Amino acid sequence: MTPEEVRRTATGPTAGLAPGYAQANLIAVPLDWAYDVLLFTQRNPKPCPVLDVTDPGATTTVLADHADLRRDVPRYRVWEHGTLTAEPADATPFWRDDLVAFLIGCSFTFESALTRAGVPLRYVDQGRNVPMYVTNRPCRPAGRIRGPLVVSMRYIPASLVDTARATTARMPAVHGAPVHTGNPADLGIRDLDTPDFGDPTTPEPGDVPVFWACGVTPQAAVMASKPPFAITHAPGHMFVTDVRDDHYTI
Amino acid sequence: MTPEEVRRTATGPTAGLAPGYAQANLIAVPLDWAYDVLLFTQRNPKPCPVLDVTDPGATTTVLADHADLRRDVPRYRVWEHGTLTAEPADATPFWRDDLVAFLIGCSFTFESALTRAGVPLRYVDQGRNVPMYVTNRPCRPAGRIRGPLVVSMRYIPASLVDTARATTARMPAVHGAPVHTGNPADLGIRDLDTPDFGDPTTPEPGDVPVFWACGVTPQAAVMASKPPFAITHAPGHMFVTDVRDDHYTI
Repeated sequence: MTPEEVRRTATGPTAGLAPGYAQANLIAVPLDWAYDVLLFTQRNPKPCPVLDVTDPGATTTVLADHADLRRDVPRYRVWEHGTLTAEPADATPFWRDDLVAFLIGCSFTFESALTRAGVPLRYVDQGRNVPMYVTNRPCRPAGRIRGPLVVSMRYIPASLVDTARATTARMPAVHGAPVHTGNPADLGIRDLDTPDFGDPTTPEPGDVPVFWACGVTPQAAVMASKPPFAITHAPGHMFVTDVRDDHYTI
Repeated sequence: MTPEEVRRTATGPTAGLAPGYAQANLIAVPLDWAYDVLLFTQRNPKPCPVLDVTDPGATTTVLADHADLRRDVPRYRVWEHGTLTAEPADATPFWRDDLVAFLIGCSFTFESALTRAGVPLRYVDQGRNVPMYVTNRPCRPAGRIRGPLVVSMRYIPASLVDTARATTARMPAVHGAPVHTGNPADLGIRDLDTPDFGDPTTPEPGDVPVFWACGVTPQAAVMASKPPFAITHAPGHMFVTDVRDDHYTI
């Protein structure tokens, strides 16, 4: 599928769809909160590498010429004062003229590079959404925004952990190198089989859990910071851009 | 000299001082303009890679524990409505409680890596400030902020251009890979011997001019966009941080 076809038709998680194209997290907040969110992303570039910020009220992005940010994400989450109030497939009825949308890099973007490097993706092979976990590491606060680091986890064969690290390190705009390898407890994660977002996945013998900073971190910040209103993507249900993933490789 | 010694004593350009430590551009604007400036940096990450943003009125930065942003830059520029009104060595009398300071990556930071890679720095050897040029390339505007890309130029032996490119590409937080190599006219630069900022430098036979995005770009934006008030560093007179330059290497 092309990126435009994914944007028009996908209803589930987008990992593995439109391979070769960058995917993005979405968070839209009222203009009054936009500076705090932008500063939060600047202060936490590993989980929040910003690919684009729209002007207030705009529903388009430079990342995909003909896209409409109100309806081209497979599933949205609508938040009021930090509480999830709706999970629509089309956010048009919820959109507001004062919303500023942030498109934030997604680790799905480096998965084509991992595949080319010979690194298997267990969760894709198992037909699951990537597992994501809220950690015990606080992000650096910004204005009224604070919250914990969220990570995504992939089981990687021990012999390929260095390859996975080197491959992703060269893509800092989509989270870059892992933030942790091996011990979930170091991140305050008690049980890998009960992720906070996404699905549990099954390791193969000799696999090691590898953790990358995750663009769901701003959603955790919405829950913790309770802005009056926000619209985000549903975890794993990303905005697929027209930008080649190689564009973000150094 | 240590970074702290440079911050306390330097009065001229800082290239080559406190080698091994990152240096930063400074631009401080009233809080009312901070979102526009932050968005401008996000939309123009090559010239404006942000290393830190202070809270309003703060005069310290996470980049150097004991520094005072009002006096630890060797020379400042004070701007009113886009016009340069003072060039003090101490900005304390000009500082305001509503100022937000942006510390932006500086290409001096990758010069230790260039030296280790065997790339000579002609302008340092010649005891000059690096030459900087306003180009014909517009930055992507943000709110009330717009302006042209500014570049710094180093003459590099032709046989070492690829080395210089590869070395700097791995440091995107301090401008990364060159934006242009070889032909000044492609950037709208008429005469390399009359830079817009800094000093002219002299090539050796076989040298090629190589251009990197420059953190003076926000100053050109101040001149073009005319915010009511701003304080910046004087070009080449940088804020020397306590952060090792390797910290910004991928």
